[in-house]
Amino acid sequence: MQSPQSTQSNLSPLVPAYDSILELAPYQTGKPVEELTREYGISDVVKLASNENPRGCSPHVTLAVTEQLGQLSRYPDGNGYYLKQALADFNDVNADQITLGNGSDDLLDILARSFAGADDTIVYSQYAFIIYPMLAKMQGATAIEVPAHRFGHDLKAMSQAVQDSPSTKMVFIANPNNPTGTQLERKALREFVASVPSSVLVVLDEAYIEYSPESNNRALLEDFNNVVIVRTFSKAYGLAGLRVGYALSSVPVADLLNRIRQPFNVSRVALAAAAAALTDQDFIEKTRVTNDEQMRWLEKQFDALGLGFVKSHANFIMVEVKFEMEDTTAAMIHQALLEQGVIVRPLSAYGLPNWLRITVGLAEDNLRLIDTLRSILTED
Amino acid sequence: MQSPQSTQSNLSPLVPAYDSILELAPYQTGKPVEELTREYGISDVVKLASNENPRGCSPHVTLAVTEQLGQLSRYPDGNGYYLKQALADFNDVNADQITLGNGSDDLLDILARSFAGADDTIVYSQYAFIIYPMLAKMQGATAIEVPAHRFGHDLKAMSQAVQDSPSTKMVFIANPNNPTGTQLERKALREFVASVPSSVLVVLDEAYIEYSPESNNRALLEDFNNVVIVRTFSKAYGLAGLRVGYALSSVPVADLLNRIRQPFNVSRVALAAAAAALTDQDFIEKTRVTNDEQMRWLEKQFDALGLGFVKSHANFIMVEVKFEMEDTTAAMIHQALLEQGVIVRPLSAYGLPNWLRITVGLAEDNLRLIDTLRSILTED
Repeated sequence: MQSPQSTQSNLSPLVPAYDSILELAPYQTGKPVEELTREYGISDVVKLASNENPRGCSPHVTLAVTEQLGQLSRYPDGNGYYLKQALADFNDVNADQITLGNGSDDLLDILARSFAGADDTIVYSQYAFIIYPMLAKMQGATAIEVPAHRFGHDLKAMSQAVQDSPSTKMVFIANPNNPTGTQLERKALREFVASVPSSVLVVLDEAYIEYSPESNNRALLEDFNNVVIVRTFSKAYGLAGLRVGYALSSVPVADLLNRIRQPFNVSRVALAAAAAALTDQDFIEKTRVTNDEQMRWLEKQFDALGLGFVKSHANFIMVEVKFEMEDTTAAMIHQALLEQGVIVRPLSAYGLPNWLRITVGLAEDNLRLIDTLRSILTED
Repeated sequence: MQSPQSTQSNLSPLVPAYDSILELAPYQTGKPVEELTREYGISDVVKLASNENPRGCSPHVTLAVTEQLGQLSRYPDGNGYYLKQALADFNDVNADQITLGNGSDDLLDILARSFAGADDTIVYSQYAFIIYPMLAKMQGATAIEVPAHRFGHDLKAMSQAVQDSPSTKMVFIANPNNPTGTQLERKALREFVASVPSSVLVVLDEAYIEYSPESNNRALLEDFNNVVIVRTFSKAYGLAGLRVGYALSSVPVADLLNRIRQPFNVSRVALAAAAAALTDQDFIEKTRVTNDEQMRWLEKQFDALGLGFVKSHANFIMVEVKFEMEDTTAAMIHQALLEQGVIVRPLSAYGLPNWLRITVGLAEDNLRLIDTLRSILTED
């Protein structure tokens, strides 16, 4: 085993944005099941930490992936011709308005790289997806975090922040929002977009749109060239393991993003899987119905346990686990759940140390969560 | 079908590196088989354009991918624990010296983003992988292209270029080189690395290393903290369709790259496939033997056809198709081959308008190529 002479970091003079990058705590992912098994020796694990679809994915997808088994050695179509055609039909746009990404992460990253330099400002909301401030740091851009209103985006305050900061180049808006589950009124969002200069790119992150069809703001693209809508196949479509997402935008923005993305950023298997997933809207409908039923059930259980929660429009719910009298913290409850094989997401990185984000699972997953939670809360 | 009001590009004031990005001709990928079928109605296509493994991939891989079919909805392990362990053992390094990428493209991109800003210089060779100057443009960095020596890297001149340009932050070296197939002496490469300041990152792109085991310069990592070796599973391992590569480096460099990469840049399927591929070194050995046999056969055929070629140490060969007397160009021959269902790579984008790069295929692919080429060359 070779050991490099020095593990001391002396990269600072070499890396232009070094200080800013080192401030980046690496993104904390949901603990993989394999890791819990490895660390705690627990094999019967329920993961409710990454907003994955507990129903898996459509059988159309499994078939499409199987059909690719003989072609793994062949590069993907770098233009994603067939998937773009399918997405154009599905979303009623032209194929040249679409950019494909290695998950929506890739698209958010390409957007920040394209539009935000060191002299620019990115505006986003408190309690919005933590990747937004990370992207600002990575670009060395100024980040303006606008205080949330009842855990959701305060669009009036965000509009004011944009007007107050002429260097603003981008606004990120998650709708429904992760991790709070809040939703924006369509009318209010349109007013917001109309209120900011057309030189400011408004990125609508619709990762959870399938759980809240009324949050679909595709129509904004018809009226505003500065709107970009980012979607993913990782959530309701159940393709998190394959990495594929897309952006809808004006043609010039799509042309730019397509120049900056890596030529083969989406794998052959992911291209085929996403196109197949799109053909099975019954699967999405059933996913939504199951999620709604289980969400109602979880809300009742949290009420019964005396736990506060934020009304969610996605496939997860944010629960307050603060017991000042008993000196119990969310981090402790997260750890106790982990040790009993239930993985949820602590939110201290979001400035929400008393909250847990819990993905809505199947009935048996949710039952196990609630039983385990109850036993933890009622312990001495 | 909705049409955005304006497809006129007025993004210039919004995008910091706009002019530089627009200079980027999008990377020209090998034409996918599906596209040829779509455009020319040809179904019996031989693709010798992207240096894919014509033997496909190991059956270990197919099995590993099949085992993932029930887990597609689950995010990959963002830390790639098992694949990194396997790569650490295979390469005799520590796991914390490894960064995984969505293909080696992803790693080259992350390296450029990390180390080269607008005030910095990137040095690379004429006729080296075209992604290097594209990355320099994307970062707005200065690009110094050092003239090639007999189609290969002129390491002495490159060393001089680095010394003459104090703003140099990175050097890219492809060994074996794509598209020329040339190889560097291990001793000469070590001297080169020793000759440049330790503050200059030397990126060795070993995408074709399995075809030329003597080009393995892993040992340089033991003596030089500024060396990064980039590898891919897309070529000999036959996983181009899945997108996975890795970088070996000092621990501080790996730590930096891991902060900048996207948290889920490698798919669950690619992680499992790469780990499985690594276990089947017999497959790699057979791939190398087949490639060597077929390379010798192709060389003989090119000799017989009176075509010049550059001795190649990889799985492709660069052939000169210049017939001044007959007013025939490589582009015309490329097109004629295409229309007969044989896809090869024209090299005008590399400043080699008289050359074609041809991937070494299976015996029947190469026979078809030579037969088709002969019929084109002997036509009126």
